[in-house]
Amino acid sequence: MADKKWPGCAKSLKGVILDMCGVLYDSGEGDGVAIPGSVEAVRKLKTSDLQLRFCTNETQASREKFVAKLGRLGFDICVPEVFSPAPAVVAVLKERGLRPHLLVYDGLLPEFDTVDKTNPNCVVIGDAAEKFSYANLNDAFRVLIGLEKPLLFSLGQGRYYKETDGLKLDVGVYMKALEYACDLKAEVIGKPSPMFFQSVLNDMGLQPHEVLMIGDDLVNDVGGAQHCGMKGVQVRTGKYRPSDERHPTVATDGTVDNLAQAVDMILNQRN
Amino acid sequence: MADKKWPGCAKSLKGVILDMCGVLYDSGEGDGVAIPGSVEAVRKLKTSDLQLRFCTNETQASREKFVAKLGRLGFDICVPEVFSPAPAVVAVLKERGLRPHLLVYDGLLPEFDTVDKTNPNCVVIGDAAEKFSYANLNDAFRVLIGLEKPLLFSLGQGRYYKETDGLKLDVGVYMKALEYACDLKAEVIGKPSPMFFQSVLNDMGLQPHEVLMIGDDLVNDVGGAQHCGMKGVQVRTGKYRPSDERHPTVATDGTVDNLAQAVDMILNQRN
Repeated sequence: MADKKWPGCAKSLKGVILDMCGVLYDSGEGDGVAIPGSVEAVRKLKTSDLQLRFCTNETQASREKFVAKLGRLGFDICVPEVFSPAPAVVAVLKERGLRPHLLVYDGLLPEFDTVDKTNPNCVVIGDAAEKFSYANLNDAFRVLIGLEKPLLFSLGQGRYYKETDGLKLDVGVYMKALEYACDLKAEVIGKPSPMFFQSVLNDMGLQPHEVLMIGDDLVNDVGGAQHCGMKGVQVRTGKYRPSDERHPTVATDGTVDNLAQAVDMILNQRN
Repeated sequence: MADKKWPGCAKSLKGVILDMCGVLYDSGEGDGVAIPGSVEAVRKLKTSDLQLRFCTNETQASREKFVAKLGRLGFDICVPEVFSPAPAVVAVLKERGLRPHLLVYDGLLPEFDTVDKTNPNCVVIGDAAEKFSYANLNDAFRVLIGLEKPLLFSLGQGRYYKETDGLKLDVGVYMKALEYACDLKAEVIGKPSPMFFQSVLNDMGLQPHEVLMIGDDLVNDVGGAQHCGMKGVQVRTGKYRPSDERHPTVATDGTVDNLAQAVDMILNQRN
């Protein structure tokens, strides 16, 4: 029974999924900064017998640019290892014949190059940051309210994240704004959507109980992974706040100081 | 029994409360435009035996400037007849010793001249329109999340309103955004808060059943007034939409084309 608990459960793991912002690095001006020990921790996981994937709600850059940035911070990561909401929503749009009005960061636009955006019949919002001006949000609102059946896709539903100069409002805040304005419920693409986690598990070919998620977001990383049957461990970096440890509905399987500590604990259990 | 229904109920009325934007005028560039027949309708009510008050969630200008604008559109209205959220929240702030961080339209700032705004321990948001930039909303968020007990006042909770060039997002949308970001519930000052309507009734010295509210906002004007025991009639001007007439939870006592028609129906019943 002890082996079902953290860190004993690490003995039977076959894969690990890592959140990126707040776990690997803190975003901010330029490329942001790597969190101490995280570059080495990723290297250790890659040389272990564990499968490794990265799962992010990052929507400010295409995966190519995002992975290149992480490379400059010292991380050895390649594009197919990274799961992010933009490619997922593009697949949904094409499958359902939808033409989006986009309210996303400029850097994400290349992901939508192959999507028909004329005469929009839905709205897609990502973490648009400064592009969440009153005028742009109003434009998105007018598209929605003009549709017979307003349809909003939100790339994640985070409340806020931490950059080097402080906390920043995330896309979920603007999702709630448009939900209220149009009296609708958005479809969330990204964490904590079970469909999104499942696509990562499918890619690994593993069952949920064989996989551990490590993130800084208690609700979307830890709670989302647990909801799918995975274990979830929270790091005390990124957007972590002490009040997370007495959250009314989500309890982690474990809390660690940072990714380096989590990886050392996992690998110690397995040796 | 027929006299409890609109327009028969007008026989026993002692007072009328009018919403302003969307009933008297449509806002937009410059002063906006008076809705046809509304100037004359206000004049007729003023020369009747009915008491008349105005109740608005307008928070883009001080009451003085707002009343001056309506004067330019032809309306004979004076400041003490107008009830708006800013003076109401100032009273609450002073009573509770609160120091606000303000996210409001520049034109509203004079209403807060007498309020201590140093070292804020709460946030007040109004209809800030273009001032609802990402940076400004993030500043308000950081004040809230830095407080031990975050406290948000919202001057109204409207979803949107109509200007001459189209629908515009209202303060309620940003209230929901900050509520979600900080996991809190805002205190709404203005319609449909029962306390706000009651302050108008107190000023008139009337009981709720003696008063009719006329507005273009089904939920905040009509529903809010009905919740206090008043009658509520909706005009088909301003933000009115045909779907309002099959709303799942709010049913008007009557629906009229515009204020002019409502006033003629009221006065016809009384002659």
